[in-house]
Amino acid sequence: MVRHHLQKHRAHLLGEIFRKMASEQIDSLLVTDLPSIRWLTGFSGSNARLLLAGGSAVLFTDFRYLEQVRRETAGIATVILNESLGKELASGPWRLGERMALQADHVSWHEMQQLSGHLNGRQFHPVLGFFDGFRQLKHVAELESMRRAVACSETVLAEVIAMISPSVTEIDIAAEISYRHRKYGAEKDSFDPIVAGGIRSAMPHAKPTLEKFESGTLIVIDMGCLVDGYASDQTRTVALGKVSGEARRVYRIVQKAQQLGIDAARAGIGARELDVEVRAFIAAEGYGDAFGHGLGHGVGVEVHESPRVGKAGTEMLREGMVFTIEPGIYLEGRFGVRIEDMVVLGPEGAEPLQGFTKDLIEL
Amino acid sequence: MVRHHLQKHRAHLLGEIFRKMASEQIDSLLVTDLPSIRWLTGFSGSNARLLLAGGSAVLFTDFRYLEQVRRETAGIATVILNESLGKELASGPWRLGERMALQADHVSWHEMQQLSGHLNGRQFHPVLGFFDGFRQLKHVAELESMRRAVACSETVLAEVIAMISPSVTEIDIAAEISYRHRKYGAEKDSFDPIVAGGIRSAMPHAKPTLEKFESGTLIVIDMGCLVDGYASDQTRTVALGKVSGEARRVYRIVQKAQQLGIDAARAGIGARELDVEVRAFIAAEGYGDAFGHGLGHGVGVEVHESPRVGKAGTEMLREGMVFTIEPGIYLEGRFGVRIEDMVVLGPEGAEPLQGFTKDLIEL
Repeated sequence: MVRHHLQKHRAHLLGEIFRKMASEQIDSLLVTDLPSIRWLTGFSGSNARLLLAGGSAVLFTDFRYLEQVRRETAGIATVILNESLGKELASGPWRLGERMALQADHVSWHEMQQLSGHLNGRQFHPVLGFFDGFRQLKHVAELESMRRAVACSETVLAEVIAMISPSVTEIDIAAEISYRHRKYGAEKDSFDPIVAGGIRSAMPHAKPTLEKFESGTLIVIDMGCLVDGYASDQTRTVALGKVSGEARRVYRIVQKAQQLGIDAARAGIGARELDVEVRAFIAAEGYGDAFGHGLGHGVGVEVHESPRVGKAGTEMLREGMVFTIEPGIYLEGRFGVRIEDMVVLGPEGAEPLQGFTKDLIEL
Repeated sequence: MVRHHLQKHRAHLLGEIFRKMASEQIDSLLVTDLPSIRWLTGFSGSNARLLLAGGSAVLFTDFRYLEQVRRETAGIATVILNESLGKELASGPWRLGERMALQADHVSWHEMQQLSGHLNGRQFHPVLGFFDGFRQLKHVAELESMRRAVACSETVLAEVIAMISPSVTEIDIAAEISYRHRKYGAEKDSFDPIVAGGIRSAMPHAKPTLEKFESGTLIVIDMGCLVDGYASDQTRTVALGKVSGEARRVYRIVQKAQQLGIDAARAGIGARELDVEVRAFIAAEGYGDAFGHGLGHGVGVEVHESPRVGKAGTEMLREGMVFTIEPGIYLEGRFGVRIEDMVVLGPEGAEPLQGFTKDLIEL
């Protein structure tokens, strides 16, 4: 059912993309980034190229994925390559046209030159972020898959929080997260779980260690999973035992900042502007230097995708976008707090996809 | 201890690489592939560039990895980027020299152009597979980490085989594999486990499904983990209940083919030649068309790396190389068998790193 809706959506998207190509006088486009290929076709294999030319889409892969292509895509034309893609493009009936585009940020310098060599030294037209505008705006079928990913991951979050004690390690909890994501219906983690206790909670990208949790410290858990190829992403910070007054104070500031971000997010304001607003609040509370990363990022077939919601964000927020709101305060050598939900922008503003409590849980 | 040996090895490697650069008149090289950066420095962050210039190595990353760089590398010079790498390279004290090389197969067309723009339109010298020759020959410290990865994964393999029954699914077993790898000391899986029962065993790259195992069928399990950043990779095929005479016959052919590959592998023969020899045996047994992939591949900081041991293999096998030997026979719509070990080439020939039985296990 969901898959059927996704397939209808994909057919519609292809039409939109061909219109965008026409408006930019692009005759053909070779898609080389795998997440966009999955988004457009459903195919999740590790070897794929998608040619958009003459109003139709053709997928190129190898024999290992013959079965998988049939199962995952709704009859998209597929070529199982026996030789190089360059040779196939040069010899096959493809209507590449005058102006052929490549995704300059997703094709290696070498592949570009190889293709050019096979195509009589053809010069390609570089495009950047060509699909961003489409991928940002989630269709109801995509949202449905993302909500399922969120629900799966929140079930797991509740279970692993209940397992935290001074006798388990960060890696124990990380292993449980990955295990339960798969057992409860996700394809896999959308990224390696972050489980960071004590002073490691002050590292935004900590890797789980063999350290056991200590009473009187905070623990940051950042996790997500994939359903139908769509990602979830969520962070909670919990306390084991009684934590210091400052830790509680910082927690309340981050909690308020995150709510402020949700309340302020709406279609029509700049992604950068939203970041600035939340950042100003944290600075006014005295922790301006301790919030070293952006407020959030888009989520979809990739767990990090456009729009960037931060200093470098150039996009206007629009209805249908899904992105995270995840302020944090990190005090090096002491502790850190981050709280993160995904939101979808609707006519009424931002709706969080997650429902898990944001009050400080004290274990 | 292991880490200390790896660090000494890395210092030695850097010296060798600077000598190779000098012999090719390369003044500086910007390393852009993350596995090679991990291999050369120990750093495992997701954002890294390594500049080799003027006889020294400098790592570029961002603030999120400040702590991790310190912990993972032995004091390698590190720059935390606040601006783009291009600006930093243009304004910093880097001795880029006349001829600056980029890894053409690991840098995007866009990044190459951006760097060129920042460096006054500089033309880069493209290199391909520049580190392959070094990465192929494993140092004893690297082998030690790979043996630990193998040992961890073989413990897990034994445990999950014992869990197979008609009441569990492929995904159940895949989840157990990932979980136990982490619990038993690995960083994580080296790739998503393949657990393929019944007709899915005939797909070399099957994704685990929610299907339960059926009695009277074969099950292919292909799995590996990472220890100290080094990968393991192993496949076994087991039977649930009594399987057909043909399934047993095919199993014996693959088992013999795999042993033939181990016996025939030695320093001084071509990787392609080894593939041909095993392939000829399978063809003589009547299944030539059913072995659709290469005989094996190198393993190291990547689970698939050079040398390719297959039709397209151009390398000569050398002492110190670690690669897989993994013949398979796949009968579409019916069943498949694959048996895979890693071997290290020594003066006496190939020594398998795995010790798990290759006789057919019937559950």
